[in-house]
Amino acid sequence: MARWEPDAEGRLRDAAMALFTERGYDATTVGDIAERAGVTARTFFRYFADKREVLFAGSDDLERLMVTGLTAAPASAGPMQAVAAGLCASGEMFAGRRDFARRRQAVVAASPVLRERELIKMATLATALSDALRDRGVAAEVASLAAETGVAVFRVAFERWVTDPGGPDLAEVVRTTLADLADLTPG
Amino acid sequence: MARWEPDAEGRLRDAAMALFTERGYDATTVGDIAERAGVTARTFFRYFADKREVLFAGSDDLERLMVTGLTAAPASAGPMQAVAAGLCASGEMFAGRRDFARRRQAVVAASPVLRERELIKMATLATALSDALRDRGVAAEVASLAAETGVAVFRVAFERWVTDPGGPDLAEVVRTTLADLADLTPG
Repeated sequence: MARWEPDAEGRLRDAAMALFTERGYDATTVGDIAERAGVTARTFFRYFADKREVLFAGSDDLERLMVTGLTAAPASAGPMQAVAAGLCASGEMFAGRRDFARRRQAVVAASPVLRERELIKMATLATALSDALRDRGVAAEVASLAAETGVAVFRVAFERWVTDPGGPDLAEVVRTTLADLADLTPG
Repeated sequence: MARWEPDAEGRLRDAAMALFTERGYDATTVGDIAERAGVTARTFFRYFADKREVLFAGSDDLERLMVTGLTAAPASAGPMQAVAAGLCASGEMFAGRRDFARRRQAVVAASPVLRERELIKMATLATALSDALRDRGVAAEVASLAAETGVAVFRVAFERWVTDPGGPDLAEVVRTTLADLADLTPG
């Protein structure tokens, strides 16, 4: 039983991640998570619709941060620079959460169902970024290329960030990865 | 009833695509497809495991062509040039099939289950390209960035290609899209 903390949502998240890691995602029930967190299943459902949502509750925040960051880029920024601003803006929600993110990646990687859900999340993100670029007046073809490429960069940068515990923060890793991409695609 | 043709597999594919377009994917059965193609359901199952496979039977060929094309790139080619060679090599399997590809895209876009399957196919492709780059001695981090970016380019190029009936062939559109990406990511 975890010691009492006022943050039931945070405790549920930590309990879920610990159990997913120990027993696997499929073998963990909502009842197990609530028990480990020292709350009732009823309390669990006040915060999450199901156990999968513990892993994907941040998706909307991630999209909102990226779209806001992209939209706030100066009018003079090109499509890829605006996407870069969006990707970097997501860094704030991951500050201090690298360990959680690393364990989450491992749980997702171990489950075909969760990997599919993650792919859908990334595709949804690409659509949102593309739409936000079009709102800035970027042509549809360019918008989708910049958005799809941006999400590819984000996936790679995120993987680099979680696997380098003492390394730079996510925004910095995104910038480095974008620079690597520029080196790979000489004009 | 379609007129008799020796190519049962091709007739089944055409019949399936016509029915998916007319009635929707979910409302079409294997029996419907076989009947439209003028064969028995038993014949259908000689060629395809299920109706979904009519739309995804080419996935292995696509991966094989891309990996072979990438691997055949000269040793002097950089990671992104090798990926480009792989993407362009896929063009041969789509020659003369733009209309089929366009209708397939529309059927896939209309079904959440098929869109998920398509995302998995693309993620599998990225892994295969990344592995092939690593076999050439490319560092893991660079390999995954080049492969993920390459798949993003392919998705965008394929969309451009299917929606431009009189336009250049797929390999040419891939090259144009890669050039657009280079313009978007100045070093």
